[in-house]
Amino acid sequence: MVLSMEKMCVLGAGSWGSALALSLAKKGYEVSMWTLNEAQAEKVNRTKENTDYLPGVLFPNNITITTDMEEAILNSKIIVLAVPSQAIRSVCSQIKPFVKDEQILVDVAKGLEKGTGLRLSEVCKEELPNNPYVALSGPSHAEEVAKDIPTTVVVASEDIEVTQIVQDIFMSPKLRVYTNPDIVGVELGGALKNIIAFGAGVCDGLGYGDNTKAALMTRGIREISRLGIAMGADVSTFSGLSGIGDLIVTCTSMHSRNRRAGILIGQGKSLEETLAEVKMVVEGITATEVAYEVAKELNIDMPITNAIYSVLYKGLKPNDVVIDLMMRNKTHEIEEVVNDKLGL
Amino acid sequence: MVLSMEKMCVLGAGSWGSALALSLAKKGYEVSMWTLNEAQAEKVNRTKENTDYLPGVLFPNNITITTDMEEAILNSKIIVLAVPSQAIRSVCSQIKPFVKDEQILVDVAKGLEKGTGLRLSEVCKEELPNNPYVALSGPSHAEEVAKDIPTTVVVASEDIEVTQIVQDIFMSPKLRVYTNPDIVGVELGGALKNIIAFGAGVCDGLGYGDNTKAALMTRGIREISRLGIAMGADVSTFSGLSGIGDLIVTCTSMHSRNRRAGILIGQGKSLEETLAEVKMVVEGITATEVAYEVAKELNIDMPITNAIYSVLYKGLKPNDVVIDLMMRNKTHEIEEVVNDKLGL
Repeated sequence: MVLSMEKMCVLGAGSWGSALALSLAKKGYEVSMWTLNEAQAEKVNRTKENTDYLPGVLFPNNITITTDMEEAILNSKIIVLAVPSQAIRSVCSQIKPFVKDEQILVDVAKGLEKGTGLRLSEVCKEELPNNPYVALSGPSHAEEVAKDIPTTVVVASEDIEVTQIVQDIFMSPKLRVYTNPDIVGVELGGALKNIIAFGAGVCDGLGYGDNTKAALMTRGIREISRLGIAMGADVSTFSGLSGIGDLIVTCTSMHSRNRRAGILIGQGKSLEETLAEVKMVVEGITATEVAYEVAKELNIDMPITNAIYSVLYKGLKPNDVVIDLMMRNKTHEIEEVVNDKLGL
Repeated sequence: MVLSMEKMCVLGAGSWGSALALSLAKKGYEVSMWTLNEAQAEKVNRTKENTDYLPGVLFPNNITITTDMEEAILNSKIIVLAVPSQAIRSVCSQIKPFVKDEQILVDVAKGLEKGTGLRLSEVCKEELPNNPYVALSGPSHAEEVAKDIPTTVVVASEDIEVTQIVQDIFMSPKLRVYTNPDIVGVELGGALKNIIAFGAGVCDGLGYGDNTKAALMTRGIREISRLGIAMGADVSTFSGLSGIGDLIVTCTSMHSRNRRAGILIGQGKSLEETLAEVKMVVEGITATEVAYEVAKELNIDMPITNAIYSVLYKGLKPNDVVIDLMMRNKTHEIEEVVNDKLGL
């Protein structure tokens, strides 16, 4: 291990923030975590374990956790934003008084802002226009990263040099970091896949099989791509780690709370009962609302998102919605290609 | 159910051939299946169940099974080729004396011919140049199709009219059939995903997690796409049902014998022991050999395929190979995009 006196900061002490803090600490960096929760801070510092979010994993001594945001950020090269997507604006606004312009924001939350439909980089830009911003995304369950299971992620920003700095900071034998210049695509892939993961859970909850779920995931990434292109993303990003990669891991694993929430809905639970049972933030539900509105505005066809929206907010039965998706008119898989070849 | 006197034929009475026969029979067609195995034919006709390949599913009276190829094919509108990929040439050659030019070949085998590297449509064209040919592929475990679990597949051929005829024949409320004009991509997706499914099994056998497997699948579809483009496929096909869709279902389900074979190799079994234990044909092993050769010839970088080849034929340890894949130089996810933006 190469020891370094460089300091990194992680805002948010949930499972993903904790796993990334651990990953950075193993590389020898001094890591300062921030949490809102005083009892959690005290307990983690004392027991060296974040029992509620990452049980069974011991924090080394170069991780400290505090409720003092200014202290956490002071002299940190990067500031990892590991809070729920809807809290990003308020956290950025809170750090504004003491953040330095050269400190790099590394956003690991995945979502779109409710109300505005903004990507999180846009939210950060509004609050902290002078700070370099990098999005980190990809198929990475926190529980596995914490256990050193080989994992790949993508980092993206508008500035390739900043992207490479963050790549070097996180890269390790167990965490392979790719760069991607398409920040729009990386952010949208991460945000929108939660909708499909929720839908995959509904499929599982209804008792459908692997065939149905694979179809949903495949058609899902296609409609995500359609919306993504309309919002300025590069289509190839959606076939990469932050697109289909993250979608696969979220749709097939019980680690995913989006999928678990979908399973409960598929089993006939109400939205209220589901949220009460899952407890943690279900990003896919907010993402469905936002994507539904944005797609309507941009006139993009998103049958799966619409179907999930109808189940969540219009009282449609999950099973009717799946049958409806299956019974749509026969169609071509690649409309554009067909049209092109037929000269339409 | 709309009754029809039209006859369809399925050559091969494994699980996939049986599930498709069942699906056609439920639509009211008369279905004639052919098998090489006399005992199987006799037993299925008597018990109405294909116990070895599709246990627990009853065949209706409009499915018959015979060992007489000519009888099976006589007056059939389509001839479904549901034999292992390496048997396609011999089956085509056997039916040559009595097949009529208007009979449509529907290939559901997935593979490349050993020795020649030819796609199966090319093999059929060499043997039966006058017959229309359609490839049918997608995320479709036979066991689930037989149980009416909602499933999607893709049909592809050079002739859009023939494609649509086959689409209409198979389309049902439980089996949704898309068309795709890119036959090269559809065939290659089906053949090459078995390599990655085998690799996913190796990952599972080694005890790695969902993150590692999702990375392997994502990077896998990317290298499949690279080879596919060099062989004339349309890149968008690989993000569709016969590409990523089929890859997902094959990599995540225990129904897949490719994945099961990989698990055994990952657990340290030899190739011989693995083949003895799985019993059925493991298409991924042949596909690895063929793709390795074709990629070398076309000078395409396929790190995962090469890694699997090294494990199968050069005695490398699976774990060393995974570590090697993770430790490659840091890289961009979308090389072309980056190069483009940097003006390289």
